[in-house]
Amino acid sequence: VPEIAFLNSAYMPIEDAKISINDRGFVYGDGVYEVMVAYGGHPFRMHQHLQRLKRSAAEIRLALTSSVEEIERVMMEGIERAGFDDTMVYLQFTRGVAPRKHSFPANTKPTFVATFREKPITSEQTRRDGVNLVTIEDLRWGACFVKSIALLPNVLAYQQAQDSEAFEAILHAADGVVHECSVSNIFFVQDGRIVTPAKTNKNLHGITRRAVLDFANDLDIPTSEEAVQLDAILAADEVFLSGTTFEVLGAVKIDDRNIANGTVGPVTQRVAAHFRLTIEQGRYE
Amino acid sequence: VPEIAFLNSAYMPIEDAKISINDRGFVYGDGVYEVMVAYGGHPFRMHQHLQRLKRSAAEIRLALTSSVEEIERVMMEGIERAGFDDTMVYLQFTRGVAPRKHSFPANTKPTFVATFREKPITSEQTRRDGVNLVTIEDLRWGACFVKSIALLPNVLAYQQAQDSEAFEAILHAADGVVHECSVSNIFFVQDGRIVTPAKTNKNLHGITRRAVLDFANDLDIPTSEEAVQLDAILAADEVFLSGTTFEVLGAVKIDDRNIANGTVGPVTQRVAAHFRLTIEQGRYE
Repeated sequence: VPEIAFLNSAYMPIEDAKISINDRGFVYGDGVYEVMVAYGGHPFRMHQHLQRLKRSAAEIRLALTSSVEEIERVMMEGIERAGFDDTMVYLQFTRGVAPRKHSFPANTKPTFVATFREKPITSEQTRRDGVNLVTIEDLRWGACFVKSIALLPNVLAYQQAQDSEAFEAILHAADGVVHECSVSNIFFVQDGRIVTPAKTNKNLHGITRRAVLDFANDLDIPTSEEAVQLDAILAADEVFLSGTTFEVLGAVKIDDRNIANGTVGPVTQRVAAHFRLTIEQGRYE
Repeated sequence: VPEIAFLNSAYMPIEDAKISINDRGFVYGDGVYEVMVAYGGHPFRMHQHLQRLKRSAAEIRLALTSSVEEIERVMMEGIERAGFDDTMVYLQFTRGVAPRKHSFPANTKPTFVATFREKPITSEQTRRDGVNLVTIEDLRWGACFVKSIALLPNVLAYQQAQDSEAFEAILHAADGVVHECSVSNIFFVQDGRIVTPAKTNKNLHGITRRAVLDFANDLDIPTSEEAVQLDAILAADEVFLSGTTFEVLGAVKIDDRNIANGTVGPVTQRVAAHFRLTIEQGRYE
């Protein structure tokens, strides 16, 4: 099945979706994005994603010309056209096309791109065995809660993890404070309690992160959002990640050191199972 | 005169230069760039610019498929086709086109874009009167010496300066250490000596910055590259900026406080005049 794109006002095969080399997304990384999964045609927590999109746009002072309702319509039609069981929806807005100059262009319409691809499969073996992580000093800018497309530092960190045959990179400050991973949020379990770094300017306030905290509440598992040191994660009973496409995934090794006994723990399994159940029961918001 | 572009292998009007929405420059800011000025067809310090381009590419592990000689040929032909007296040459390489996934794509050819526009004119009045600056805390990432296209933080800082009717923003750490400006390097003059922030990971190692230090040497003006505090700049005898397109420009006010008596000082004028003379004498490298 070919990847479908929506560009400004029309759907097309992705090969036909082209933008100007003067698009500010291309020359400046001057834009924002969201990634969502639609399960059987139903986007998960769509309104939270679209609210975050609006917030990201406002933070970089990009005036969206599409309403939330219009974006929803583009999404729902694209999901239907693509026809996958589960769809990964990508939305991107940039500050539009203008001759290259750093200042905001006047009277330029934002570029709106959406793509519709099959949701990547996370194998049952990966879910059962868990994944490896590496630790990398976080070099990103000071406004990581903005979901901007200027992602080069994330790309470099993620690739560095791949090069070490790890799934993800834990990004931490020089003093050991953990921010998040390069494309996911991180949690650990200690004495039956789920802990995750508090929301700051140095991490993305993940929708799936929020879902995990909600699910823990459903399951009567105590949670805490607080300042987290790398040492606490290394000494934890369990470590897991949250992300839009893989949902919840246990981490069993960090920089070649096992977490606890090196297996995916019971709390991680309960949260992951509850996530599955939530989808099966059709509770998408 | 229409803006000319070069894209991968051909010259075209810029309106025809389009790239895929899956280009990693567009979705990740995953690329590097250079801006040069050609005076009467002669690029200024071209080899230094191209060496920096190679270094930036190496830092983000982008394997350029074009040799320095090929890039030079593209530049020289584009400058001739554009036919301006003075040309602003823009070069950009991205990691190419691939379905969106953070990790480096295998076997993907980099995208090579060049544009050729008339060099912007800096008015004689601006050169005579000097410009205003504002101070902004630097939110950028930890590898600003890499000339990457993930420039959103620079865009936001530059726009914030424009909103204050200032020409540029001085970017400084929370502790007052000055890095550079959003699109230029900064210098100050104290007791006849030219001082500029030393090269670090938090500033671009400007080619025009280097030229200014060379010109100061020609003129027997002592220079220093060192850690610079905002306070030292505010108390300086003179402040000036260096940048590829405007060369050298005096700054007379910072956050509504005059620098010295609020006029462009004699050392700044000597350096600017020497820059002009160097071009007139055809010393381009």
